[in-house]
Amino acid sequence: MTLNIGLIGAGGMGRAHVERIENELTGGKIVAVADLNLDAAKEVAEKVGGKAYGSGEELIADPNVDAVLIATFGRVHKPDVIRAIEAGKYVLCEKPLATTAEDCREIMEAEQKAGKKLVTVGFMRRFDQSYGILKAKMDSKDLGETTMVHCRHRNPTVPENYLSSMAIDDTAIHEIDTCRWLTEEEIVKVRVDIPRSTSYKFEHLTDPIVVVMYTESGIRIDDEVNVNIGYGYDIQCEAVMEQGTAYLGDQEKVYVRSSQERTNAICQSHIDRFHDAFNREVQQWINAASEDRHTGSSSWDGYAATCVVDAALESLESRESKLVSVELIEQPEFYK
Amino acid sequence: MTLNIGLIGAGGMGRAHVERIENELTGGKIVAVADLNLDAAKEVAEKVGGKAYGSGEELIADPNVDAVLIATFGRVHKPDVIRAIEAGKYVLCEKPLATTAEDCREIMEAEQKAGKKLVTVGFMRRFDQSYGILKAKMDSKDLGETTMVHCRHRNPTVPENYLSSMAIDDTAIHEIDTCRWLTEEEIVKVRVDIPRSTSYKFEHLTDPIVVVMYTESGIRIDDEVNVNIGYGYDIQCEAVMEQGTAYLGDQEKVYVRSSQERTNAICQSHIDRFHDAFNREVQQWINAASEDRHTGSSSWDGYAATCVVDAALESLESRESKLVSVELIEQPEFYK
Amino acid sequence: MTLNIGLIGAGGMGRAHVERIENELTGGKIVAVADLNLDAAKEVAEKVGGKAYGSGEELIADPNVDAVLIATFGRVHKPDVIRAIEAGKYVLCEKPLATTAEDCREIMEAEQKAGKKLVTVGFMRRFDQSYGILKAKMDSKDLGETTMVHCRHRNPTVPENYLSSMAIDDTAIHEIDTCRWLTEEEIVKVRVDIPRSTSYKFEHLTDPIVVVMYTESGIRIDDEVNVNIGYGYDIQCEAVMEQGTAYLGDQEKVYVRSSQERTNAICQSHIDRFHDAFNREVQQWINAASEDRHTGSSSWDGYAATCVVDAALESLESRESKLVSVELIEQPEFYK
Amino acid sequence: MTLNIGLIGAGGMGRAHVERIENELTGGKIVAVADLNLDAAKEVAEKVGGKAYGSGEELIADPNVDAVLIATFGRVHKPDVIRAIEAGKYVLCEKPLATTAEDCREIMEAEQKAGKKLVTVGFMRRFDQSYGILKAKMDSKDLGETTMVHCRHRNPTVPENYLSSMAIDDTAIHEIDTCRWLTEEEIVKVRVDIPRSTSYKFEHLTDPIVVVMYTESGIRIDDEVNVNIGYGYDIQCEAVMEQGTAYLGDQEKVYVRSSQERTNAICQSHIDRFHDAFNREVQQWINAASEDRHTGSSSWDGYAATCVVDAALESLESRESKLVSVELIEQPEFYK
Repeated sequence: MTLNIGLIGAGGMGRAHVERIENELTGGKIVAVADLNLDAAKEVAEKVGGKAYGSGEELIADPNVDAVLIATFGRVHKPDVIRAIEAGKYVLCEKPLATTAEDCREIMEAEQKAGKKLVTVGFMRRFDQSYGILKAKMDSKDLGETTMVHCRHRNPTVPENYLSSMAIDDTAIHEIDTCRWLTEEEIVKVRVDIPRSTSYKFEHLTDPIVVVMYTESGIRIDDEVNVNIGYGYDIQCEAVMEQGTAYLGDQEKVYVRSSQERTNAICQSHIDRFHDAFNREVQQWINAASEDRHTGSSSWDGYAATCVVDAALESLESRESKLVSVELIEQPEFYK
Repeated sequence: MTLNIGLIGAGGMGRAHVERIENELTGGKIVAVADLNLDAAKEVAEKVGGKAYGSGEELIADPNVDAVLIATFGRVHKPDVIRAIEAGKYVLCEKPLATTAEDCREIMEAEQKAGKKLVTVGFMRRFDQSYGILKAKMDSKDLGETTMVHCRHRNPTVPENYLSSMAIDDTAIHEIDTCRWLTEEEIVKVRVDIPRSTSYKFEHLTDPIVVVMYTESGIRIDDEVNVNIGYGYDIQCEAVMEQGTAYLGDQEKVYVRSSQERTNAICQSHIDRFHDAFNREVQQWINAASEDRHTGSSSWDGYAATCVVDAALESLESRESKLVSVELIEQPEFYK
Repeated sequence: MTLNIGLIGAGGMGRAHVERIENELTGGKIVAVADLNLDAAKEVAEKVGGKAYGSGEELIADPNVDAVLIATFGRVHKPDVIRAIEAGKYVLCEKPLATTAEDCREIMEAEQKAGKKLVTVGFMRRFDQSYGILKAKMDSKDLGETTMVHCRHRNPTVPENYLSSMAIDDTAIHEIDTCRWLTEEEIVKVRVDIPRSTSYKFEHLTDPIVVVMYTESGIRIDDEVNVNIGYGYDIQCEAVMEQGTAYLGDQEKVYVRSSQERTNAICQSHIDRFHDAFNREVQQWINAASEDRHTGSSSWDGYAATCVVDAALESLESRESKLVSVELIEQPEFYK
Repeated sequence: MTLNIGLIGAGGMGRAHVERIENELTGGKIVAVADLNLDAAKEVAEKVGGKAYGSGEELIADPNVDAVLIATFGRVHKPDVIRAIEAGKYVLCEKPLATTAEDCREIMEAEQKAGKKLVTVGFMRRFDQSYGILKAKMDSKDLGETTMVHCRHRNPTVPENYLSSMAIDDTAIHEIDTCRWLTEEEIVKVRVDIPRSTSYKFEHLTDPIVVVMYTESGIRIDDEVNVNIGYGYDIQCEAVMEQGTAYLGDQEKVYVRSSQERTNAICQSHIDRFHDAFNREVQQWINAASEDRHTGSSSWDGYAATCVVDAALESLESRESKLVSVELIEQPEFYK
C-alpha cells in the first residue's frame, strides 16, 4: 500500500523531500502540492503527476491525501498543522513546530483533543546513525552518567538575510532538540555567551556565540554556533560521562596523503551531512503513517525546543550572558 | 512504473535482496522466486505475494517477470544467465558470473548474439561511496599515475567448509574486480605468496595469503587475504600514486575515550560494511532495467575476474609463489 | 662550562628535576639541595654528590650555587625567590610563583630593583612541541584572528586531599598561563560553571567544573577541569579562528586493531605527557642562565596567572557562575 | 665522568652527532675529529675544542679518545672498526657496518678475538619510542604470533646520485634491521618486485620497488621503498598478528581544520622523524661505554643486514622478482 502524501511548501526543502520520496524511498507518493505561490506548486506537482493547490487548507481537505508534509516557514506552520490534526491526518512538520510557545500549546491542545499523536517534528538528527550510536553509549551507562555535552555547529557561511536570532531559532535549535533527546531531560536554564566576533560576516551579525544550557539533573551543555567559519559544515558532539567520553567522528571516508599532509575532507552542507538521516526520518514516517502509528519527535518536543529558544533569545538580547530560566507547562500525560 | 523482478536462489543472499527491494528501495517488486528447494522458494514468495518455481527456467519463462536477479551458487549460474539473455531480460547475477572462463565466454557469446548488454555482475563495491571517492582521486591524476595498490581483506572468521581456494575465488575476487575498475586496466600476471599461517584456523586452510598482481601498465597490486583475524571485517585499500596516496578510512562514526584508550569500532560483517553499496547497486540496476539500460559490471568484467582467479589458483596450488600469466581473449568491441 | 644549580624542595617534583638534570640534560649540575626536612635534602644531595641544607636561605647564600631551582609548595615560594633575586641568581620557580597577588607584586618589585629579569616560572607547557605548533598557527593569522579557545584538563583521578579550589589554583592554572601565552592577551573576566558532579569522587569535591574566561579583545576560553574521569590524563586545546581551527592531537604513537576496535593509548600522567616539555624547559633555563639571559615565563606571568586564579576562586565560591573581573596593576615597562 | 669521544668522518652525519653530543646529550664530549679532508676535520674540531686528524688510524691511537664514533661512508668502515676493536675502544658505527659480508665477518672475527662486544651499529630505529611500543605489543603475544609485517619507506625525493641499488643498501636496510629486531628472527629469503615506475625521477632510477622477505618461521615482510613520492618522509610499519594488528601512527601533534579539510602535517625528513631516536641511541651508547657495557645492534646484526642486502640486490638485478636465499654463517655463540 502506498501512502499518498500532500506537500505544503514548494520551496527548497519541500522539493528536496519530493526528490527523496520519489527517487530514494519506498511506500510513499506525492499526490498534491500546495503553495501560496500557485505556480511553484504547479511546477512541482506536474513533475510527480499530482494536484496543485494555492493553500494548505485545500490540500488538507483533498480526500486523496493520506498524510501531510509541511515545509513552509515556521511562522505559518500552526494553522496547517491544526487543520491536518482536525482532519485526522499524520503530519511531518519541518522544524520549528511553531515560532511561539503559545502556538505550540495550541497545537498540543488540538492533538490531545484528536486523541492520538499525529504530529512529527522534523528533527532529522535523531535519525542520524552516528548520533544513534552516541545515544546508545550514553543510555548504556557503561561510562556512568553524563555530566556535560559539548556541541559545535559550524557553517561555511550564511547569507546576508541571516539574523543573529537565527543562530538560535534556526541553527542551535538542532542541538537543543538533539540534547533533549540524548539526555532524556528537559533544559531548564540557558545563557548565551558572546565571544569576540568574526570579521568574516555582516556588521549586523553576532557570530560566533556559545549557548550554555543546563538540564534538570544539571548536565551542562555548550553549543558553539559559528556560522561563517569558511572551512565547512562541521557538526560535533561529545558526551562527557563520569568515566569517559563518546563523540561523533568526521564521517571520513577517504584519507589523502599529499603536499606534506594527511587530509580528510570535511562535509560542506547539511544536505550532505544528513542525507541519510533525512531519508531515514521520512521513510520511517511513511512506514509509521501507513500503519497508523506515530514516530519521531512529538509536538511536546517541538514545544519544549521553542521554549528553550525563547529563553536563549532573551539571553542573547541582554548581551551580557544573562542566565534565563526555561518555563515549561507541566508535561501532559498524553506526551509521556 | 514498477520493475517486476524474479529471484532465482532463495538462500541468504537472495533473501537479503528481497528484504532491500521490498523495504528499502523504490521502483522494484519481487513477483516470483525460484529455488531447487521449492519449499524455500514458496516461503520467500509467500512473504512478498509472488509466485514460486522449482527452477530458474520456469521463472524466466514467466511473462510477468521483467528482470531476473540470480543469487544461486556460482557453479550453476550459467544456464540461467543464458536463458535470461535469450528471453531478453536484464539480469543481475551475483559474483562470480561463472566459475570457469569457458562458461563466461559462452555467456558473452549469447549476449553478443542478443545484441545488447543485459548482464550485470554483482560486484557491489563499485557502488560504495568511499571506493567512489578513491577512484575519483585516481582518475583526476592530481597526484599523478597510480604505481601500486595495497588491499587488505580481513574477516573475523570463516566456517569450516571454507576452502583455501575460496580465499581467491570467493574473497579476493572482490579486490580483483575492484582493482580492475579502479585502475581501468586488465590484470596480466598474478602470484600468491604464502606467509606463516595463523593457528586460529582449520588444519586444511592456508590463511593468510597475499595475492600479488600486475596490471597492463605495471601497477603492482597486493591483496592480503586474512580471513580468521578475529577483530573484524576490515576492508582496506590504498592507491599509491606518483605524488601521494589515497586510501579508505574506517567509516568511523563515533569515537570513545575510556579505559586508557581512544577507540573506534570496526565493522564486523560485509553486510554492515557494504549495506549502502548493495542498496545503491540494486537501486541503480532497477532504475536502469526500467529504462532499458545496462549498468554496473558487464559480462566482460565477470569473465576477466574469473580468468584472474584461475591464474591465482594455479599459483596458490604451486605453493611456491609461481608467477602466472592471465590469458584473456581479445576484448570484443561490444564490451568496450 | 657547567651551571651549578641549587635545588630547594626535595619532594617528588624536586627529585624529578634532579633526575633529568643528572641523566637527561646537559650543562647543569645539582651542587646543593635544601629542604626543611634535612634528611630528605641529604638523601638527594648524597646521590649527586652535593651539599645539603635545612633552608633555602643557606643554599642561596652558598657561593658555589650559580642558579636556584625552587620546587617547594607555592605558599612558601616568596622568601626564597626574593632572596635569590637579591643574590643576583637566576631562579626557576615551580608554579605558582606565589599564592597571592600581593606576594607576586613583592617579587616583581624586588626583581625590578635588581634591574634584570631573574625569575622564570615553571609553566612547562610553553615548551611542549604540540602547543608550540598550535601557537605558531595562531600567530601566523593564516586562519584569521582567534575567537575562542576550548581546553580540556582531564585526570584519571586525584587523591582525597585534593580540594575543589585546587581545580583552579593547581590544575586550571596551567590553561590560564597557556591561554595568556597563546593569545598574547591578558584575561580580564572569569566565570566558573558547575555541571552535574561525578559520583566518582569524594563528597567534598566539586568536579567537574568549567572555567570560562575572556581576554582583552573578547576571546572566549573555556576550560573543562575534570579530574576523576578515570580513562586518562587528557589535555586538549582547540583554538578556534575566524576561518578554521587548530588543536592538539593525542600524541598517538601506535594504533592497535583488535577486539572489534581500533585503539590508540591515552597518556596516563602529566609526567609522561610533558616529559619532553619539562626537559626542554629546564635545558633552556640552564642554557640561558649560563649565558646570563632570561627565558620562559616571567614574574609578570606568574602574577597575572595568580590574579586570574583569585577571580576564578571567587566565582567558584559564589557557586552561581558569577562573572568576576580580573584586576591587574598596570604592567611595568620592565616586563613588556 | 665524561666519555671522551673521537669522531671519524666530518660530513653531515658526523656533524649532526657532534651537535647532539655537545648540546643535547649528557656524559659525552667530542675530543677529536678525523677526516681524510683535514680541513673539514679541523673546522669541526675547532668548534668543540678538540684535536683534528687526517686519518681514523691516528685518532684511534690517541690515548685521550675513550670511544669512537664512525660516520664515514660504509665502504671505508672496516679498517677503522677493526682498529678500534684492537685498541679495545667502544665503537658506534653508522650503518652499514660494512658493504660486504666478508668485511663484516672480518670485523666479527676481530671482535671475538678481543673477547668482548665493542661494536654498536647505528640502527637508530631500535631506539624510536613508537617502534618500541610496537615491538612490546608483538612480544606480548596478546594478539598471537606475527604472520606478516607491512613496511613503507617513502621519501619526498632523492638526489641525482642516488642509485637504484641504494633503495636497498641505503634505504631498505633500515627495515631489514628493524624487522629482524621486531620479529627476533633471521630473514632467509628475499625477492624484489618492480612496479610501474614513477615519472618523478631520473631515468636511471628504478623507483618504487617492493622488497618481499621471509623470516625463518615464514613471517612475510613487504617493504615499499618509494623515494620520490613528494609528499613527505613517511615511515609506516604494521605488524599483522593472528588476532589483530599494531602499527605506527603519524606522530601527529596538531590537527588543523581549514579549507574544507582536516589535516595533520607529515614529517619531511629522517632528521625530524628520528631526532629523538638518534638522541636516545647515542645517549645510551655513551652511558653504556662509560660503564664498559655493550648496547644496541651488534656486529652480527650488521653482518646479517648486509647478507640480506646482498640477496635483495641480486634479486633486483635479475629484474624478474627472483627469489634469493640469504646465506648466513652459523651464528657464533659470542653473539647469541
